Amino acid sequence: MTRYWQDLQLGERFTTDSLKLEREDILAFAAEFDPQPYHLDSAAAEASIFGGLCASGWHVAALMMRLLTDSLYQQDIPVQGVASVPRMRWKAPVFADDSLQAEFSISGREPDASQPGCGSVDLDVTVHNQDARPVVALTARLLIPLAETEHAG
Amino acid sequence: MTRYWQDLQLGERFTTDSLKLEREDILAFAAEFDPQPYHLDSAAAEASIFGGLCASGWHVAALMMRLLTDSLYQQDIPVQGVASVPRMRWKAPVFADDSLQAEFSISGREPDASQPGCGSVDLDVTVHNQDARPVVALTARLLIPLAETEHAG
Repeated sequence: MTRYWQDLQLGERFTTDSLKLEREDILAFAAEFDPQPYHLDSAAAEASIFGGLCASGWHVAALMMRLLTDSLYQQDIPVQGVASVPRMRWKAPVFADDSLQAEFSISGREPDASQPGCGSVDLDVTVHNQDARPVVALTARLLIPLAETEHAG
Repeated sequence: MTRYWQDLQLGERFTTDSLKLEREDILAFAAEFDPQPYHLDSAAAEASIFGGLCASGWHVAALMMRLLTDSLYQQDIPVQGVASVPRMRWKAPVFADDSLQAEFSISGREPDASQPGCGSVDLDVTVHNQDARPVVALTARLLIPLAETEHAG
C-alpha cells in the first residue's frame, strides 16, 4: 500500500540492501566525472591521503541514491525528488570490492514543501562499508506526495 | 605555476567551460544510480513535477565536479579531495541537450583542515544552463595543499 507523507513518522528508521563496488566502476565514474589521479591511478592513489585507489565521493553519493531509491520502492514510498542536501560529509575512502549499505532515519517532516501537493521529509543518512565504517553522512530533504484525504469527496 | 592554499584569495571567482548533456547520458546515469520514472521515461516525466525527462540531481552534481576538476587542473590548483558539502540545493531540472557551466567563488579559507599539510577552501558554486538559469547551488569545502615555505630550509 502506498505510503504518503502522512504515513511517515519522525524517528522511523530503515536499512537498505548492500551493494558491491568494482574497480571498473570506480575507474569509469572517475574518468567521466572526477578525473583525479587518486581515482584513476593506483600508484598515484597510494601516495595520496587516501592510501589507495578509491571512488569519487560523488560516486559514493550516487550509490547512496541508488540504495535509497531501491529501498523507497520496496516500501512503496513515492518520492517526487530530492529538493536539497542540507549537509554532506565524506568520512572514509571507498575502495574496490567494498560493499556499501545505508541507514536512514527520518529527522524532520514539514507538511509544506516547495512543491504543491508534497510535504518534505528530512532523512539522516549514513552509508557504511563492510567493516561498519561510515564513509559518507548526509541529510537529504525529500519531496513526498501528501495523501489527498483533505481534498476527497 | 602550482597555486597552493596560500595563493588562493577570499572572493576570487572563476567560470568553467561548458558541457552539454545528452539524452543517452541522462538515461545511463539514471538506470545505474537513480532509477525514477521521471529520469527514465518521457511520458512519466511529462506527468511529473519536472515536466519532462530530466537528469538525476546527482548526475548534475557529478557534472559540476567534472567542470570543477577541469577548471582546477587548468589553473594548476592541486586538490586533495572534497571534504564536505555544507549545503546543496537543486533549483531547476536539467533536460537533454542542456549545456551546463559553473561559477565558483571562494567564500572561506582556513589554514587548518582535517588533513595535515592541507588548508581548506570553501567554494560557493552555481551551475546554470544555457539560459543562465541556476540548476544547482552548493558550497564545497576543498582540501588544498599548503605551500611548504614554513618548513623549508
